[in-house]
Amino acid sequence: MSAIQKNVESASEAYSSLFTQGHLALPPAKKYLVLTCMDARIDPAQAFGIDLGDAHVIRNAGASAHDALRSIIISEQLLGTREIVLVKHTGCGMLTFTNEDAYGLVEKNLGSDALAELKSRQPDFLPFSDLEGAVKKDVQYLSDSKLVPNDITISGWIYQVETGKTVRVA
Amino acid sequence: MSAIQKNVESASEAYSSLFTQGHLALPPAKKYLVLTCMDARIDPAQAFGIDLGDAHVIRNAGASAHDALRSIIISEQLLGTREIVLVKHTGCGMLTFTNEDAYGLVEKNLGSDALAELKSRQPDFLPFSDLEGAVKKDVQYLSDSKLVPNDITISGWIYQVETGKTVRVA
Repeated sequence: MSAIQKNVESASEAYSSLFTQGHLALPPAKKYLVLTCMDARIDPAQAFGIDLGDAHVIRNAGASAHDALRSIIISEQLLGTREIVLVKHTGCGMLTFTNEDAYGLVEKNLGSDALAELKSRQPDFLPFSDLEGAVKKDVQYLSDSKLVPNDITISGWIYQVETGKTVRVA
Repeated sequence: MSAIQKNVESASEAYSSLFTQGHLALPPAKKYLVLTCMDARIDPAQAFGIDLGDAHVIRNAGASAHDALRSIIISEQLLGTREIVLVKHTGCGMLTFTNEDAYGLVEKNLGSDALAELKSRQPDFLPFSDLEGAVKKDVQYLSDSKLVPNDITISGWIYQVETGKTVRVA
């Protein structure tokens, strides 16, 4: 067992021994979802004030709305959420590379078969060069999508990894 | 401003006023990623023992490895993670519907234009009927993918929403 797997087991022992929330329902109690980045420096529950059971939390590289659409539709249509809080962040890895860089790394590290598999199914890593612009673009993308009802409330934010602060920009 | 947006602002005030972790680096310090579900009843940091800065956390509907592949490739190839902890959970919404159910809801709630947009770009909601089987299948999918290096350590787990406990199954 790896050190990381041992850590999951010991954390789970400690957490479950004090756990009192086994009664929570499947649909989020406060009927909202948070979409944010997978970045290791973000703790959504603490930074954005999400109590257990209150909100869906979707996370991917760059907090991409496009990438999250499957989950967003399920959250809204099957589990009743009515509001989206979209949070990207300063210092995001997605600001540091292009699709071409990523293709190059895959070919160098994993070989030409991997590159062929990549090109056959995952053509866009969805990097961006303008943080605030990317938040606004994703909010617009969700507002425009026929798959997101018009009465869903959508806001866009930037989390500052340097200060722990979250600031609204859309 | 909605009540949920006000809550983000007040939580951010409180969190940032005590924040001391502005020095953390972009790459995850412990070089691993956790892939889990967006479910509102899961707090990965607490339940799986993830300290701020240690791991990427990817979350989507059902903790789908297929859906997360873009983020996983970025995590490994650009930010140096070497281990995947995949956690699905009891009581998952993905156990409760089929693609046909979801298509039907989209058509009923959002109309035929929305259904057409859905079918043009997002054909599979990736539901599953066997929880432990779905964990094993996703671990196998990642192990088999040419886009995940052979020396990446992968484990599969089930979080019990009733008890707060996380149990390894693959």
